[in-house]
Amino acid sequence: MKSYLEKPYVVGIDIGGTNSVFGIVDTRGTILTNGSIKTAAYTTIEEYVDALCKSLLPLIVAQGGVDKIKGIGVGAPNGNYYSGTIEFAPNLPWKGVLPLAALIEERLGIPTALTNDANAAAVGEMTYGAARGMKDFIMITLGTGIGSGIVINGQVVYGHDGFAGELGHVIVRRQGRMCGCGRKGCLETYCSATGVARTAREILAARTEPSLLRDIPAESIVSKDVYDAAVQGDKLAQEIFEFTGTLLGEALADFIAFSSPEAIVLFGGLVKSGDYIMKPLQKAIDDNILNIFKGKAKILCSELKDSDAAVLGASALAWELKEAAV
Amino acid sequence: MKSYLEKPYVVGIDIGGTNSVFGIVDTRGTILTNGSIKTAAYTTIEEYVDALCKSLLPLIVAQGGVDKIKGIGVGAPNGNYYSGTIEFAPNLPWKGVLPLAALIEERLGIPTALTNDANAAAVGEMTYGAARGMKDFIMITLGTGIGSGIVINGQVVYGHDGFAGELGHVIVRRQGRMCGCGRKGCLETYCSATGVARTAREILAARTEPSLLRDIPAESIVSKDVYDAAVQGDKLAQEIFEFTGTLLGEALADFIAFSSPEAIVLFGGLVKSGDYIMKPLQKAIDDNILNIFKGKAKILCSELKDSDAAVLGASALAWELKEAAV
Repeated sequence: MKSYLEKPYVVGIDIGGTNSVFGIVDTRGTILTNGSIKTAAYTTIEEYVDALCKSLLPLIVAQGGVDKIKGIGVGAPNGNYYSGTIEFAPNLPWKGVLPLAALIEERLGIPTALTNDANAAAVGEMTYGAARGMKDFIMITLGTGIGSGIVINGQVVYGHDGFAGELGHVIVRRQGRMCGCGRKGCLETYCSATGVARTAREILAARTEPSLLRDIPAESIVSKDVYDAAVQGDKLAQEIFEFTGTLLGEALADFIAFSSPEAIVLFGGLVKSGDYIMKPLQKAIDDNILNIFKGKAKILCSELKDSDAAVLGASALAWELKEAAV
Repeated sequence: MKSYLEKPYVVGIDIGGTNSVFGIVDTRGTILTNGSIKTAAYTTIEEYVDALCKSLLPLIVAQGGVDKIKGIGVGAPNGNYYSGTIEFAPNLPWKGVLPLAALIEERLGIPTALTNDANAAAVGEMTYGAARGMKDFIMITLGTGIGSGIVINGQVVYGHDGFAGELGHVIVRRQGRMCGCGRKGCLETYCSATGVARTAREILAARTEPSLLRDIPAESIVSKDVYDAAVQGDKLAQEIFEFTGTLLGEALADFIAFSSPEAIVLFGGLVKSGDYIMKPLQKAIDDNILNIFKGKAKILCSELKDSDAAVLGASALAWELKEAAV
């Protein structure tokens, strides 16, 4: 209890291809103070860490100093929890294997944990959000791509190599859509926000019915346009969500057969499409799930604010750090 | 160490639709003595447990008595690890929820754990077999159906309800073959031993090439016939295994994306088909796996003798019983 009282805060850092955002967070998930730097402005990882720590340190000092910080959690693309390294991340400016956690620890003297953003999101929901009190759930983040974090027995599944939980790249259509990963038919080519836009373009090209979406140049359509059209009663737009929800539900039914979770927590802009996507999704789960799992797994939406979720998720990792629990 | 030395044995019980086999096992996985009873010969679960214990007790006494037994492990269809119950098992004579572990414990005064046979097989491989020393692997049993046991961080994944790991019922072909579970396209309709026989019948009916398999009445073909034909150079038979191995490999590539295991351990008669199935299987994994997992998960065959594996797997559960570790 002593150390808990002495170290009431954690730091969360979320590294994206464009921005790196960070904040100091208390036990209830309040972001007390935050900041950001441009990720791509630094040619080496050392320069980046230098800039990051220079921006972060004043915030830490303002909250009472390094002694008040239990740990730092980092969410980063291709983050390996075991080694604290970022490995071959295609959307970051630095190549190869980057010992980010060690560099930050060295610089600030604060224990640092690192994992990918979807795993961080899972820990965030478990600590502050929709999965509080749960020991078995699956987090699915629906963004430009699809990420996932799997929690079993209260622990994130990192797998043998630290990279487990790539459910966005489960193949849902053999010989289906080309994916950025080089393979075909991955879940994220259909059910991410960009997947929804692809479906819109496909359906508009293949069909002749009128649609509000025809007023937008096909290449410019984004998932928000499809939502706006659906809300206005556009049948094709509603059908696009039905297709998306159905494919996602079919995939979730298979994921449930793997780990039989208490819940699946969905996060991302698409979740805001509400019933347009959630109804066909729930129906597809019910239609496709093995009898013994029927009605067991709840489908929940994230309870974290979009703008806070990345920092909160990363910060939650730091509460689990054992080294600091002296 | 005291209790370990005093209780050097465990009991394994494997309950099948036809036979229930049991044995007393030492720490090295040697079955010291064994026996069996007919499962379906008893109209109530109480009569069954009575008969089981009456057959088992003399074996225990011959090994030095109840005090020498650390615990009893039971592998049973639809076995729920958390509650020690068998729940709605379609192939057993007794219906509903059966508190089997409690009934055995009550009768013999020995701590008893229960799970389904594929989970038991996974613990068996981890304790005595191909997965010794591994903390993350997936066990796949290829029999009449397909079962699976998933181990993460050294623990079997039981999920929220005790029934996780039904990978035989992941859907690999939407609107595919009818499955005994009432749904369509489950992995086990293609890649179990009966799935191989179904493929044989389908291919023989759809094609006209000569094949040794045409000498056998279509309805009588079993997977062993396909193997025998393949060994004799029969092209259609070899193609049947290629199809089976490819579908299984595609599915395994997706499973790897879930938990990134160190290995996948295969068990069952089909594994004896060797290269006929293993080569296309490995190729399908390599062709379908996400880049970051490439070449990481080993595909292994069980190291337990077919005839011993069920009892050994069940017995291994008992070493993990905490209650007895006084």
